[in-house]
Amino acid sequence: MREKITSGQNKRVKQWRALTSKKGRKATQTYLLESWHLVQEAIKAQQPLTAILGTAEQLDRHADELPADVDVFELTESIANTIGDTGTPQGIFATAPLTRDEDVDPAMATGVWLFLDYVQDPGNIGTMVRTADAAGLAGVVFGKGTASRYLPKVLRSMQGSQFHIQVVEADLHDWISAFTSRHLPVYGTNLDPQAKDYRDVPALSAGAIVMGNEGNGMAPDLQQMTTRNLYIPIKGQAESLNVAVAAGVVMFRLVG
Amino acid sequence: MREKITSGQNKRVKQWRALTSKKGRKATQTYLLESWHLVQEAIKAQQPLTAILGTAEQLDRHADELPADVDVFELTESIANTIGDTGTPQGIFATAPLTRDEDVDPAMATGVWLFLDYVQDPGNIGTMVRTADAAGLAGVVFGKGTASRYLPKVLRSMQGSQFHIQVVEADLHDWISAFTSRHLPVYGTNLDPQAKDYRDVPALSAGAIVMGNEGNGMAPDLQQMTTRNLYIPIKGQAESLNVAVAAGVVMFRLVG
Repeated sequence: MREKITSGQNKRVKQWRALTSKKGRKATQTYLLESWHLVQEAIKAQQPLTAILGTAEQLDRHADELPADVDVFELTESIANTIGDTGTPQGIFATAPLTRDEDVDPAMATGVWLFLDYVQDPGNIGTMVRTADAAGLAGVVFGKGTASRYLPKVLRSMQGSQFHIQVVEADLHDWISAFTSRHLPVYGTNLDPQAKDYRDVPALSAGAIVMGNEGNGMAPDLQQMTTRNLYIPIKGQAESLNVAVAAGVVMFRLVG
Repeated sequence: MREKITSGQNKRVKQWRALTSKKGRKATQTYLLESWHLVQEAIKAQQPLTAILGTAEQLDRHADELPADVDVFELTESIANTIGDTGTPQGIFATAPLTRDEDVDPAMATGVWLFLDYVQDPGNIGTMVRTADAAGLAGVVFGKGTASRYLPKVLRSMQGSQFHIQVVEADLHDWISAFTSRHLPVYGTNLDPQAKDYRDVPALSAGAIVMGNEGNGMAPDLQQMTTRNLYIPIKGQAESLNVAVAAGVVMFRLVG
């Protein structure tokens, strides 16, 4: 079914526009994928989509790749320009259901996970999910204070990796306890040179790595719950590493 | 000397405003450091500064740390707001002379260097300079097509690392030839899984690592000049790594 929408006052258009806000996402229990790259990643990963929307030109260009069982809406260019976060959208979008976090049980989780504690920069967060995917991790848990996985900037920098690995929003206290009580190592990260050198622990096949806030690192109460806290020795005069770079260095050392 | 400037038409104010453009930087052979963090890094590293400028409040707050031999200009808040790149400046700046690239000779360079070929994102570039500093590299060469080291966004993400290690703009053909003719290894990076696994080469004490463009990787002609080209094996389904993360993984493996 391909339905044409020509009025900016259309109820669906208003709902799609609202997907840049948390309230709007909650109302329809969906979020927005912007650009063909992300829509294509979702289709390739056979993710459920609730709608595909785009200009006639974009829908025609990708007609062969669109799944037959998803409703398609053709928008005028001026309506397409009002949807999404980028000032100059490509003109193709999809809506996907919000993830059901309650389906993911830390007591059953396998493989290696990345836990994010109060990480705030959307670009850093998305890059870490993408890196976790590349390094072969099983999933990423967005803990308290970490920016939403549905923010347009997070989605852009994840580049579709949320379709390859699990991305969950949950309380890290629960996840750390669940892992350590199963005797799975949880390695925190620490800005203290007295902590354990990240190169001096064995490779991980199951367990977790925790990254903390850009400025303050991991919360002290979480640091006390981990198996060990690791440190990346700084050789030069830089005060610290970018959090996404640090996460990449540790993940590729211990897992990749 | 602390001179008060109250007119936005002042000649110096116009020059400072122009430092966000290449033309403006060329005219006075200086660039702008924005925020106390960067000004302080320059002072700590005893970098030559041509002027320090700020609001009365900011200058008073940091009076004890300002070097005695640099001219200080007190600006009204409304003038300070027109200088620099950030919408809401902190109100303190310094101007520093542009680097003299001709002072750096690849035939004499020691230690490990990072070469950037056509890297375009200012945040990625600055993060790589900061990471090179942290990993103990000697310097970074900005090759052709790489964004300028004086762009405000590059300066922000370098976080002052340009005062700790050398940052040069030069032709990578010259630098690669100079290194390989001295029998120093130059490791390119390659998106081809047939290339050498980055974990299978020995640690570097002198030589170079080359990172390429975000979308296209290193230029083919440069790849043919290197000692070897390295690949980071991707385990998951991500198509690639962010260039700054990839650089961090390789630098910390081979140098850090």
